[in-house]
Amino acid sequence: ATHKLLLLPGDGIGPEVMAEVKRLIAWMNQNGLGSFETEEGLVGGAAYDAEGVAVSDATMARALAADAVIFGAVGGPKWANVPYEARPEAGLLRLRKDLGLYANLRPAICYPALADASSLKREVVDGLDIVIVRELTGGVYFGEPKTIVDLGNGQKRAIDTQVYDTYEIERIGRVAFELARKRRNKVASFEKRNVMKSGVLWNEVITALHAREFPDVVLEHVLADAGGMQLVRWPKQFDVIVTDNLFGDVMSDIAAMLTGSLGMLPSASLGDLDATTGTRKALYEPVHGSAPDIAGQGVANPIAMLGSFAMALRYSFGRLKEAELIETAIANTLDKGLRTADIKSEGTTVVGTRQMGEAVIAE
Amino acid sequence: ATHKLLLLPGDGIGPEVMAEVKRLIAWMNQNGLGSFETEEGLVGGAAYDAEGVAVSDATMARALAADAVIFGAVGGPKWANVPYEARPEAGLLRLRKDLGLYANLRPAICYPALADASSLKREVVDGLDIVIVRELTGGVYFGEPKTIVDLGNGQKRAIDTQVYDTYEIERIGRVAFELARKRRNKVASFEKRNVMKSGVLWNEVITALHAREFPDVVLEHVLADAGGMQLVRWPKQFDVIVTDNLFGDVMSDIAAMLTGSLGMLPSASLGDLDATTGTRKALYEPVHGSAPDIAGQGVANPIAMLGSFAMALRYSFGRLKEAELIETAIANTLDKGLRTADIKSEGTTVVGTRQMGEAVIAE
Ligand SMILES: CC(C)[C@H](C(=O)O)[C@@H](O)C(=O)O
Ligand SMILES: CC(C)[C@H](C(=O)O)[C@@H](O)C(=O)O
Repeated sequence: ATHKLLLLPGDGIGPEVMAEVKRLIAWMNQNGLGSFETEEGLVGGAAYDAEGVAVSDATMARALAADAVIFGAVGGPKWANVPYEARPEAGLLRLRKDLGLYANLRPAICYPALADASSLKREVVDGLDIVIVRELTGGVYFGEPKTIVDLGNGQKRAIDTQVYDTYEIERIGRVAFELARKRRNKVASFEKRNVMKSGVLWNEVITALHAREFPDVVLEHVLADAGGMQLVRWPKQFDVIVTDNLFGDVMSDIAAMLTGSLGMLPSASLGDLDATTGTRKALYEPVHGSAPDIAGQGVANPIAMLGSFAMALRYSFGRLKEAELIETAIANTLDKGLRTADIKSEGTTVVGTRQMGEAVIAE
Repeated sequence: ATHKLLLLPGDGIGPEVMAEVKRLIAWMNQNGLGSFETEEGLVGGAAYDAEGVAVSDATMARALAADAVIFGAVGGPKWANVPYEARPEAGLLRLRKDLGLYANLRPAICYPALADASSLKREVVDGLDIVIVRELTGGVYFGEPKTIVDLGNGQKRAIDTQVYDTYEIERIGRVAFELARKRRNKVASFEKRNVMKSGVLWNEVITALHAREFPDVVLEHVLADAGGMQLVRWPKQFDVIVTDNLFGDVMSDIAAMLTGSLGMLPSASLGDLDATTGTRKALYEPVHGSAPDIAGQGVANPIAMLGSFAMALRYSFGRLKEAELIETAIANTLDKGLRTADIKSEGTTVVGTRQMGEAVIAE
């Protein structure tokens, strides 16, 4: 089968790290490890500059038609003053919403070779392997009203709305429980039920789903503020963490930072499995951002982007063997002492984006 | 002048740590270091058990009449199933709201003697001294609608509303800038302007306030998710962090955990200065919670509670010398190697709540 990929490199270091995915895809095509057809499109600031919007309807149509979207990064100081609706992030948010990508999987893995790069003690993070399952199409990100009203007298009022329906909590909970069953069988659900009604409903729905469909999985309810604390104190106590869009945004960034390997972490954003076609909409992106400060210098770490492509092989195309091949190649490259500047340490060899990409392919 | 204090010990370890504040107050009264009159009231689960509400109107009236409220902690598994409106936390939230305590100051200090208790590397946290200024009476905590609607078909919809008006952002910003001027002159403002309209307004108001009244203070705008990362990566880059109610809840817990000294951290919640009387409403409470797992055993750490009383001396009564006296006594007690169980390490002497309180007074 031929897999149709839409590549959206975006802004900043996006195009540089995407170049290494293209190199990897070309190599896989040549070596009979798959048949991938790629198209490219604009998103974020790049799309705004060319088309006046953060993602055009034409690009959206191609995203809907693709088997998977491979996304780089968006944003940068250049677009600090563009209209709110056209800001680079709006492109990413529209992709998530219009593709129905409600399940964001963010693994936080601490590579032993990099444990010393963390600000946390080695014993706290060494061997860490957790996944944050973040709800991605609901909550305060998309709830209405979302507006700023002029009250007169120099006063304005800003309103955002956090909304969750039962079915939205249920389907993300199901993703978390199913994932946990393939791992260490533990789910921690983060919410703020002592203050938020959405936290009360979240807790209620996850509790009922657990009792009904997943009684074999160990479930723990954690207040989000205490959860953030525990993530910093002893992250290895967790296996799968499931939480809403906004808490997931904050917690997954913190989890990424714990590992000392921000430039290393991939993510997958998935829609529902279509029972007829057996496929799902999906977008894969590195957890790191567009890093405008180092853009264009050829020094960015492509590993998170390559790892995101490996996730595409696993979750969109069922090619587990090829996904593992890439992941092992990444680990081997690190074991040999190759490092991009963001993860360098004494006794290692610093290489650029392209050399790192080529080294992973060589492995 | 006689200072009227309302003591609200609350639940769990609240009464135990409050007992040490009472001991300290009695000692200060006896030794001519102040004239304090104390009353006690019920709050949280204790109030629910006795009066059916998390804080009664009578107690609220006494809080309004007091010069300062000294608060222990609320909550525990015993009240997991009480009605939402009467849950222990509702007592604390009503106190904050009805007293108009919009400015929550949460210092995160890493005591050198305790730096090894942190999960972070010593060099990352040793000497850390930052303050989180959290907006405490607005945002998603109090915005309406806040409700769960039954949609039929087994579906419910939960709604929380994040609301901020210009004046609310301005007054908390002013607290942060003024505090920074007395410290290292740096403010970092955390919001999520790339997703939330309240973040957009927050950013706009802080920017204008800075330009108008505090151009001498160094101001930095940080996206809250990136801010959480930076807090874990290199917290010493910050001096004062100002943020909204919900982000402040999460960030201050994380900052507390960084220091390795959760049982050590005090907080102050302040209202506006009354221009006529020169006084302000205020509540002082430890950052730690009610810790039901160790309640009643006499092992809880009273230092955060004693430090909160020191903050009362500083912010409510202008008794800076006495506040410093207490803070120095706490540091000296730690230097002598006395520890409660939560902060023990090799070569230190473990003591109980009462012994720790007495040791601080002896110093
Ligand atoms: C770029 C931004 C809109 C986005 C988010 O807030 O979801 C990012 O922080 C992320 O975590 O993917
Ligand atoms: C007890 C709870 C309502 C409270 C809050 O969320 O504000 C607590 O977590 C805090 O930080 O003081």
